[in-house]
Amino acid sequence: MKKQQSKNIAIIGSGLVGSLLAIYLKKYGHKITVFDRRPDIRKVDFSGRSINLAMSNRGWNALKEVGLEDKIKEIAIPLDKRAMHVIGQPEYYQKYGKEGEAIWSISRGVLNRKMIDLAEAEGVQFKFDEKVWDVDLPEAKLYTGETEKGEWQEYKYDLIFGCDGAFSRVRHKMQRRSRFDYSQDFIDVGYKELTIAPNADGTHKLDKHSFHIWPRGKFMLIAMPNLDGSFTCTLFMPFEGEVSFENIKTKDDARVFFKTYFPNVMQDLDNLMEDFFKNPTSAMVTMKCFPWTYWDKVALVGDSAHAIVPFYGQGMNAGFEDIYVLNTIIHKYGDDWEAIFNEFQQVRKPNADAIAELSYRNFMEMSSKTADPKFLLQKKIEKHFATQHPEKWLPVYSRVTFSDRPYAEALAEGDAQEAIMKKVMSIEDIEQKWDSKEVEEFILKQL
Amino acid sequence: MKKQQSKNIAIIGSGLVGSLLAIYLKKYGHKITVFDRRPDIRKVDFSGRSINLAMSNRGWNALKEVGLEDKIKEIAIPLDKRAMHVIGQPEYYQKYGKEGEAIWSISRGVLNRKMIDLAEAEGVQFKFDEKVWDVDLPEAKLYTGETEKGEWQEYKYDLIFGCDGAFSRVRHKMQRRSRFDYSQDFIDVGYKELTIAPNADGTHKLDKHSFHIWPRGKFMLIAMPNLDGSFTCTLFMPFEGEVSFENIKTKDDARVFFKTYFPNVMQDLDNLMEDFFKNPTSAMVTMKCFPWTYWDKVALVGDSAHAIVPFYGQGMNAGFEDIYVLNTIIHKYGDDWEAIFNEFQQVRKPNADAIAELSYRNFMEMSSKTADPKFLLQKKIEKHFATQHPEKWLPVYSRVTFSDRPYAEALAEGDAQEAIMKKVMSIEDIEQKWDSKEVEEFILKQL
Repeated sequence: MKKQQSKNIAIIGSGLVGSLLAIYLKKYGHKITVFDRRPDIRKVDFSGRSINLAMSNRGWNALKEVGLEDKIKEIAIPLDKRAMHVIGQPEYYQKYGKEGEAIWSISRGVLNRKMIDLAEAEGVQFKFDEKVWDVDLPEAKLYTGETEKGEWQEYKYDLIFGCDGAFSRVRHKMQRRSRFDYSQDFIDVGYKELTIAPNADGTHKLDKHSFHIWPRGKFMLIAMPNLDGSFTCTLFMPFEGEVSFENIKTKDDARVFFKTYFPNVMQDLDNLMEDFFKNPTSAMVTMKCFPWTYWDKVALVGDSAHAIVPFYGQGMNAGFEDIYVLNTIIHKYGDDWEAIFNEFQQVRKPNADAIAELSYRNFMEMSSKTADPKFLLQKKIEKHFATQHPEKWLPVYSRVTFSDRPYAEALAEGDAQEAIMKKVMSIEDIEQKWDSKEVEEFILKQL
Repeated sequence: MKKQQSKNIAIIGSGLVGSLLAIYLKKYGHKITVFDRRPDIRKVDFSGRSINLAMSNRGWNALKEVGLEDKIKEIAIPLDKRAMHVIGQPEYYQKYGKEGEAIWSISRGVLNRKMIDLAEAEGVQFKFDEKVWDVDLPEAKLYTGETEKGEWQEYKYDLIFGCDGAFSRVRHKMQRRSRFDYSQDFIDVGYKELTIAPNADGTHKLDKHSFHIWPRGKFMLIAMPNLDGSFTCTLFMPFEGEVSFENIKTKDDARVFFKTYFPNVMQDLDNLMEDFFKNPTSAMVTMKCFPWTYWDKVALVGDSAHAIVPFYGQGMNAGFEDIYVLNTIIHKYGDDWEAIFNEFQQVRKPNADAIAELSYRNFMEMSSKTADPKFLLQKKIEKHFATQHPEKWLPVYSRVTFSDRPYAEALAEGDAQEAIMKKVMSIEDIEQKWDSKEVEEFILKQL
């Protein structure tokens, strides 16, 4: 590991990625200032537009590296399975992985408060309610002020990190340069945060160690447990169309909607309806860009570089893995920030693109394929084979969620598996002999 | 045609699309003000970063509709063929289409000056050197001023049109709204404007009625004639790599480059070398977005909605066709600008996407396929068949350039033709029997 000279570093954004990056960089002895345009999240209510986080292997790795894994596990709940709530069927469970493998439910707000506390304890300085309006990229200067048109204050740094999320102001500045590739693609489904309250005795109303899903074709409800006995639910639904946010206008509309599609959460109906009209409907976007860095001065990390739709539960994990990888590259190059930034973007970009693609495909799969018997049979065959030959067939979900193999590899392996399964599905009478020796041998020959 | 109430309309951008749209709308009796952040192009030198325009059918249609075709033909030169300059071969020609079909070379600057003159003569007001910094979309208000941070003046309009090009400020404002899809993709090839001077007697040094091409694989030079006997040339070349803009640093580098690759323009070497170092290297981008409009208040027209790479010569033509189509929709809906804007974007978006794709494919074709004998044979077979059966096989280039069929149809037809040609190219001994009755019959059966 090469030594580093102490630098004066600004991080824009005090979210999860900004706070964790601050902790990492502080450990090198750098002077770290974190700017956020919003107030200190520890002093305000949460926004009501959050989806609970599912921390998995990559997120934990990044926390472990700076000794935070245990502290964060205290505020997380392990979920080792999906609980499926299908109309007309009893609740049933799908294990996520092997024994001991789980994803962990954490409230975004609770985690963010904790991370800021931990960063402050390390000596990171936070400047809340200070809005960055402009960045001088080659000079690594920041301009902040009350309003965009008003008086600005200038700050000069050695390095600036943009951890300011999908609508990053730092990226916004980079984006106006020539030869900066950029895309933002919204999906036509929105989401809304809802809550299921705890039982009177503080226990959870649904199984506490499950990720609860009510799949309904074009829309779905999910629920993830919180420490206080409540569940944070997310309703994903098209903005427009037959069953859509647009078409639920009155309390009566909402009552009919919940009664029709989610009968087993009716005891929380009042709750849900209040949230439905109180909380905003949010949009989801896939954002890609390149380059992520400017000389040895400015770098984007996390959502500001690669925002993804939430259907693989990997947004935060990918951001934390950025930091983990960046750190290994710092180890390699020491003070050569140009080399660090260049390798960082070269290594991470293909993986960011891969998890964006996987997340989008999961969205498409959930909205259009979950009712297709052919698709369900294919999933059953894959699972069957993977159980028989765990060393030969690691499901994509496991590779993404429980391994630290690159996302790009998971995508490529998944495509290879899909090609094999296409052949399997065209075997005559596959419905009858899906679990036969013949099919098993067939797959083995393809590998 | 429904009557229209007179509206107070602002057009942002005094380029080709902005000026022509102003002329169209003025004819309805609207009050039209055109803003441009740059000075009056009639009072300054051209920029040295222009590619000559190739006006074809769609552009002429739009001009004819408002009686301008003849006036513009006076400043244009018809090109009925490509002149190919291949090293080690004599110059040879490829006709563009049927007898009488041609594309027309026009200097962007000359045309733009003329269009502004024509718009002013119609009573359009131009405000040059006035920078629009912000747009209030729901109120159709504009904010202009010397600098972004300085004092602003507010203007209120009934309608605002953003004709401010690929880096549109109007779109920039729309882009920050949720659910606005946007992408900008740069190609790794840049371009530079160069000039071949006229002969001493004012005549052209190369054939005047040809589009001259020096294809060199990864890079190429093109030349289009001007009225004054000169040619405006464009050198397309990778930014980085073996033969690249990056690698031509000195006058010696440039001399060797031109001598090696473009021996037949050596008499203009001094000229070319001076331009090479004087003129900027420009980037090329494909820009897509949606929606193009905001309520009944704001609409994007031309490059601001759909910037494309220039390899099909359709950028201006597509922008002019936007206006032509918009006008037919105005005829249909009269004062219902919400309906007008909605139909406009619904009708034009697929066609804009199609010409973007076709233009990008032409770039890929030129940079990677022009040296492939299989590809050249395929083109020869297509041409041969099209000549025999002109009613059954309209080449994509002709459909795009010499027809007014939708771009999306040209793309779809081109894909269908490509699928047929793939089969043709896999016929055994196709090299020998490419012009045989057998191949002709084979293609006829596929149609």
